[in-house]
Amino acid sequence: MYSFSEAVKGLRSSAIRDLMNLATHPDMISFAGGMPDNELFPLKEVQEIVAGLSVEEQQAALQYAPTIGYPPLLKELEQWLKRKGLPVESNHLIITTGSLQGINIFAKLFVNPHDVVLTENPSFIGALSVFNSYLADVHGISLDGEGIDIDQLKLALALNPKLLYVMPTFHNPAGISYSLERRRQLLEVMNCTSIPILEDDAYGDLFFNNDGASLHTPLKSLSEKEQQICYTGSFSKIFGPGVRLGWMLLSDDFYRKAELCKQAFDACSPSFTQVLAYRFLASGKLDEYVTKVRTIYKQRCDYMVDAVTRHFPQEVTFVRPQGGFYLWVKLPKGMNEKELLKATIADGAVFVIGSTFDPLGADNGYIRLSFSNTSEDKIERGIRIIGNRMKQMIIE
Amino acid sequence: MYSFSEAVKGLRSSAIRDLMNLATHPDMISFAGGMPDNELFPLKEVQEIVAGLSVEEQQAALQYAPTIGYPPLLKELEQWLKRKGLPVESNHLIITTGSLQGINIFAKLFVNPHDVVLTENPSFIGALSVFNSYLADVHGISLDGEGIDIDQLKLALALNPKLLYVMPTFHNPAGISYSLERRRQLLEVMNCTSIPILEDDAYGDLFFNNDGASLHTPLKSLSEKEQQICYTGSFSKIFGPGVRLGWMLLSDDFYRKAELCKQAFDACSPSFTQVLAYRFLASGKLDEYVTKVRTIYKQRCDYMVDAVTRHFPQEVTFVRPQGGFYLWVKLPKGMNEKELLKATIADGAVFVIGSTFDPLGADNGYIRLSFSNTSEDKIERGIRIIGNRMKQMIIE
Repeated sequence: MYSFSEAVKGLRSSAIRDLMNLATHPDMISFAGGMPDNELFPLKEVQEIVAGLSVEEQQAALQYAPTIGYPPLLKELEQWLKRKGLPVESNHLIITTGSLQGINIFAKLFVNPHDVVLTENPSFIGALSVFNSYLADVHGISLDGEGIDIDQLKLALALNPKLLYVMPTFHNPAGISYSLERRRQLLEVMNCTSIPILEDDAYGDLFFNNDGASLHTPLKSLSEKEQQICYTGSFSKIFGPGVRLGWMLLSDDFYRKAELCKQAFDACSPSFTQVLAYRFLASGKLDEYVTKVRTIYKQRCDYMVDAVTRHFPQEVTFVRPQGGFYLWVKLPKGMNEKELLKATIADGAVFVIGSTFDPLGADNGYIRLSFSNTSEDKIERGIRIIGNRMKQMIIE
Repeated sequence: MYSFSEAVKGLRSSAIRDLMNLATHPDMISFAGGMPDNELFPLKEVQEIVAGLSVEEQQAALQYAPTIGYPPLLKELEQWLKRKGLPVESNHLIITTGSLQGINIFAKLFVNPHDVVLTENPSFIGALSVFNSYLADVHGISLDGEGIDIDQLKLALALNPKLLYVMPTFHNPAGISYSLERRRQLLEVMNCTSIPILEDDAYGDLFFNNDGASLHTPLKSLSEKEQQICYTGSFSKIFGPGVRLGWMLLSDDFYRKAELCKQAFDACSPSFTQVLAYRFLASGKLDEYVTKVRTIYKQRCDYMVDAVTRHFPQEVTFVRPQGGFYLWVKLPKGMNEKELLKATIADGAVFVIGSTFDPLGADNGYIRLSFSNTSEDKIERGIRIIGNRMKQMIIE
């Protein structure tokens, strides 16, 4: 029988918290946080929305909402997802308290202690914490610049996995997006099984080139057996993490269990922010806002890639991001990422080391640099600090 | 090994949802919902708070908060709980996404499949759903007008329970509050064990007589071994359920695990509403608001008790509530509550049957009437409808 104290061993959240405390220090240039920039939030829009709420909306904002979500938001979101090609008619939506809760709910439906869960390696730390909290045996499958390694995935099916968790679009932390070909290959392999797929699309709207739609088409839209896939999304990157709202789009069978699970988790998602999200979405302001921040994130990414090219030693490699928040940099062979981090913290720059995102916490010779939350002048200074330390470590 | 589909059997939330859909029908007089009245929410105060937020607060409202909560809210809440006599110095606070999440987190720390969890009988349906979702064997202990049955509690300790869940103050659904004597007896029994106690104080501020402080002093304040107790509270009844904010006050050992668990549940509670709750609390407006609604709920309770006395047959019994939202009525012997409900729905009045709150779903000859959400004229009409049907059923 399991105990939570056993599960706790696998949770590395405290280490992350310590790093985040460091990262928010005013003198520190931080590439650590996976959050939007405070300076980019739609403050004016929110003020206008709140001031313009009807009495009924103000009351709804303070009352319980239905477990699956505030009905006007569900309706708007359904239309929004439909325009993006998602199969909303044959599926159900649940508004979750952030998309992490959706991951947790879906895990609870399928994962018993010591069950195998397949993830990418590297993978989203929040999802790893969830799977660890269910005492899963997490098995990571390598990523390359085109997506998940299909041969490894095929082999891993022999482990009798209960779930495959993937983030095919603008991956956290790997920065890549699966090619259309790789998406199809993954689906071909998985369609022959009945293993549920959890597709995390937290960053899908943050593409840098609209003509690259093949790089951000959800698996859920592509699959002939889409009922196998639970699709999660989030308002965190397209509105603000503080609203704590995400969603799950899932087939009837999954849905009924997920609703019961959500009911026992927190009864319903915050109504207050659901009312705001509804108004933001319905007014068209959300789309305007996303278009704006997409451009800014693209600029910051370009700027970071340029700075890395100028300041990092030639031996580093990376895949240029086509969207999202992250640059995932492979260090020169033999360079220790923990030592590098220690040195750059002393100089005033911080990032997240690759082992944080390894399902087993193993060193992998990578670092994650977030460009979402740092202005251009700080990117230049911070990348120079890190680059100088790298060069110094090579010489030593 | 367990499976969630097994757990789902125990979750009766869908039945509750159906009832709530009925209860919100405009032609229906509802005593079913355990929520505040829309008409009583502090709409003006919220509008003023939002309009008065600084840029930094507006940004914080949209950004991730620390997992344990928005620091200014934690600080204010700590002082507020301290003034109520709670041991905040020797404990830690975690802001949760509603107090139900606190119950879920605490259950996750201790409950494995088939572990025994002790609750009162009747008990809060949300907590029962949580324990069922962990596949606990829930063992209910009877309540009388003074509190939990101490002899039954002593006997139940032989079952090797992993947790005792109680709501000693203004109980949902039983309407009672433990006497000071019964609180002391419970603590005397439990202090001899190391079984964690989960004290749910969602209604503690809604007392009808201030001189009755003995009826709403938390166990956590009374116990000599208070570190055994996790105390949960909620903004749902003193601000609005839609803010989805509650809290856990717990000792160091429990706290560190609970924080990790919270991190995997939803990363952090909604920042937006945490900023609002902070301002509401810090301005003193929350205390003013609670004083106001307390008076209104007392009037509605008085009104309902009066109407029940006039319209229900003499054979019904109940304990007059000293606070909270609910009147828990024992039906005349032999009267079936499901038949009664069916009949009164046809006449336009709805309530919740007692078996909903029984850990095993057994019929118990009780009904729960909520007076929080129904205006006085509707109370009169609805109680008359139910009383007439009762009298008719006695004659038949």
